[in-house]
Amino acid sequence: MSGWHDDDLVRLSASEAARLLQQRSLSAERLLQACLQQIDQREPQVLAWCALNAEAALAQARALDAGPITGPLHGLPLAVKDLFDTQDFPSTYGSPIYNRQQPQADAAAVALCRQAGAIVLGKTVTTEFATFTPGPTRNPHNPAHTPGGSSSGSAAAVGAQMVPLALGTQTAASIIRPAAYCGVVGFKPSFGLIPRAGVKSLSESLDTIGGFGRSVADVALLTSVMADAPHWRELHVSSKPRIGLCRTPNWHAAATSSRETLQLAAEHLRQAGAEVVDIELPASFTPLVEVHDLIMWAEAFKALAFERLCHPQLLSDNLRQRLAIGEQIDFAQNRYNHARLAEARSDLSLVFADCDLLLTPSACGEAEAGLQRTGDPLFSRAWSALGLPSLQLPTGVGPAGLPLGVQLIGPEGSDAQTLALCHWAEQHLKQ
Amino acid sequence: MSGWHDDDLVRLSASEAARLLQQRSLSAERLLQACLQQIDQREPQVLAWCALNAEAALAQARALDAGPITGPLHGLPLAVKDLFDTQDFPSTYGSPIYNRQQPQADAAAVALCRQAGAIVLGKTVTTEFATFTPGPTRNPHNPAHTPGGSSSGSAAAVGAQMVPLALGTQTAASIIRPAAYCGVVGFKPSFGLIPRAGVKSLSESLDTIGGFGRSVADVALLTSVMADAPHWRELHVSSKPRIGLCRTPNWHAAATSSRETLQLAAEHLRQAGAEVVDIELPASFTPLVEVHDLIMWAEAFKALAFERLCHPQLLSDNLRQRLAIGEQIDFAQNRYNHARLAEARSDLSLVFADCDLLLTPSACGEAEAGLQRTGDPLFSRAWSALGLPSLQLPTGVGPAGLPLGVQLIGPEGSDAQTLALCHWAEQHLKQ
Repeated sequence: MSGWHDDDLVRLSASEAARLLQQRSLSAERLLQACLQQIDQREPQVLAWCALNAEAALAQARALDAGPITGPLHGLPLAVKDLFDTQDFPSTYGSPIYNRQQPQADAAAVALCRQAGAIVLGKTVTTEFATFTPGPTRNPHNPAHTPGGSSSGSAAAVGAQMVPLALGTQTAASIIRPAAYCGVVGFKPSFGLIPRAGVKSLSESLDTIGGFGRSVADVALLTSVMADAPHWRELHVSSKPRIGLCRTPNWHAAATSSRETLQLAAEHLRQAGAEVVDIELPASFTPLVEVHDLIMWAEAFKALAFERLCHPQLLSDNLRQRLAIGEQIDFAQNRYNHARLAEARSDLSLVFADCDLLLTPSACGEAEAGLQRTGDPLFSRAWSALGLPSLQLPTGVGPAGLPLGVQLIGPEGSDAQTLALCHWAEQHLKQ
Repeated sequence: MSGWHDDDLVRLSASEAARLLQQRSLSAERLLQACLQQIDQREPQVLAWCALNAEAALAQARALDAGPITGPLHGLPLAVKDLFDTQDFPSTYGSPIYNRQQPQADAAAVALCRQAGAIVLGKTVTTEFATFTPGPTRNPHNPAHTPGGSSSGSAAAVGAQMVPLALGTQTAASIIRPAAYCGVVGFKPSFGLIPRAGVKSLSESLDTIGGFGRSVADVALLTSVMADAPHWRELHVSSKPRIGLCRTPNWHAAATSSRETLQLAAEHLRQAGAEVVDIELPASFTPLVEVHDLIMWAEAFKALAFERLCHPQLLSDNLRQRLAIGEQIDFAQNRYNHARLAEARSDLSLVFADCDLLLTPSACGEAEAGLQRTGDPLFSRAWSALGLPSLQLPTGVGPAGLPLGVQLIGPEGSDAQTLALCHWAEQHLKQ
């Protein structure tokens, strides 16, 4: 009990910490202090946070230690992407338009985490409205590289061991890619299972809440609370999975290291007893990268109507240009794009008749050098458009010394099974 | 030009007024002054508004008169349901929890209306979070009767001729029913076409933005701007419609006056040349009233997590009880309800192979006496769940001297055609 070192505590996975906290063999205050110590050390270099209140968090931790066990997240420090409203921190959404906004309420997802006992330590940097213009955050493994986006601060905060858990959102690749770049587990559940009330809207057909942690069990713990799906935490596998190795039509854009990582993961899972087969995706899948982009910007053009009409000079050039793309997509074209997506969704459900999980790249490669871009969302666009549960698992380190991982995709609505199979896979892909 | 009387101006439909404003044969200031005069007279009895700024509106009207034509809503006064955020009025969402909340931004739909030239005169009363606990608003045709809900103030403001246009939202029956009770046209477009950014979320699978006006052309004008669908304003009919007379499995709950209104409308449309056939709905339709209720409260339980956890004592007893229903619906049951809905949606698309439009009751009958309830949403629940475009057309007056109407339903995504056919029907159902 008294024997914990800060270094051990900040490396604990959330689910390990949760077990100790529930047993009262670790106090919420002790864990939080270790996190705060780590933040003191790492934050000047990583710049993951845009708001943080150590005093308030410590007071909550002491209150949790003094009271009954509140729920599955009891005493776990949590970072919240600055796209979620909270009653106790400002919301900037990564934009100067909102540099003085103090919401009156918590986003529903934040309220559910707090009810379950999480301690919201602060808000983490998002790109501008969860699009492509970066904030100041740097990759915790090399500050000259991007942490990815748009959930930049959340992925970096977990990657730098400042917190065990963080909330993110994904519209294109905003959970999977930063998780891959920062070497953590990221999970985007099936579309529509976690309430988005109080989260800044970008593209209603695509925006999905998810989370970051150090293990599959961690993200299952966090997202199960927000989806009100306790069975996601069971992680029970009845038989070894049939895994579809899915290079996708964009394989040419994957770096050699990403390709090798994927092949190696397939080999390890095969050795562990999984049936691994090469998957040929249906033809309707191919246009989804473009379809995703068109749906996203058509919807963003409408969702950000106030910002582009009332504060155009406070939008980045990049965002203005993307919204101009959205403006060009008329009603009929948008309907056509949704129809193409529906066709692919129907075809993909057939792919899952033959396999339980797809194994596919998380990103083109390691985190790019430089902080001007957050990397290419290419390898997540289609899965985001399809609304399928997607999990990034760190599996190794690339030639630049930065993390690499693989992405695992399950059928729509099968989040419990997908998490369980990812948990199984994780055991056999340990770095 | 100078010959307008206030009485004539406040009776103008929005589309008639828009034509005059675009021709500069009516000034925005003159129209607004007539509306303000009408508000002075009617508001003490109707109580439609929770915030109003005449001075700011007049300044906007003068600016519009002095400048170029801005868009299709140029100079039209608009009432906004207090579920939409605006940068210049508080948002209460009909709850004491938010009695001092001033948003920093306009909801996207409001911004789009302003861009098109609408003058937002103020905010109108909503029931508590758009659920069933009423605000103070009274029926403009008889103050002892409910105006319906949840878009109570918006429907009443148009019904009392205080404004030509108003914004509403529908999750169960919150546009169609108050429109019927207040004797105005209400239109809920297909699900997902109008951005909900900045609108308080209740049930993400169901919440839909729509509008109120005095004619089909009015609601086409208003909603086309928010959906970025200018072709909705064409109202072009190429042939006389095939209309399905749809009594629904809830026919027993319709008052005699509602039944007679529907039969009479069918007869008039048949005489006008429509092919009218009795429609037997598929068996999968029958449970939709229950399925809708379960989906709505399961989602509301999550969406209102902050409010029920942090301010339970400020929720009405009625809402607390409904949320307790939502709490009981577990993940698997919710998935099952969505599957039942998907089955009905698929079956309903076959119904539309044989007809262009369904003709069905708007509500059980005239507006109920008393202000404690907003009436039964029964006749809109299924259509809301299915996400179909739905329009309420006033057609007459019932035995209590209050308005009656009929509801017209089109296939998913066929909003342009549905509006055009409703416009055709309107010509033959003139009161």
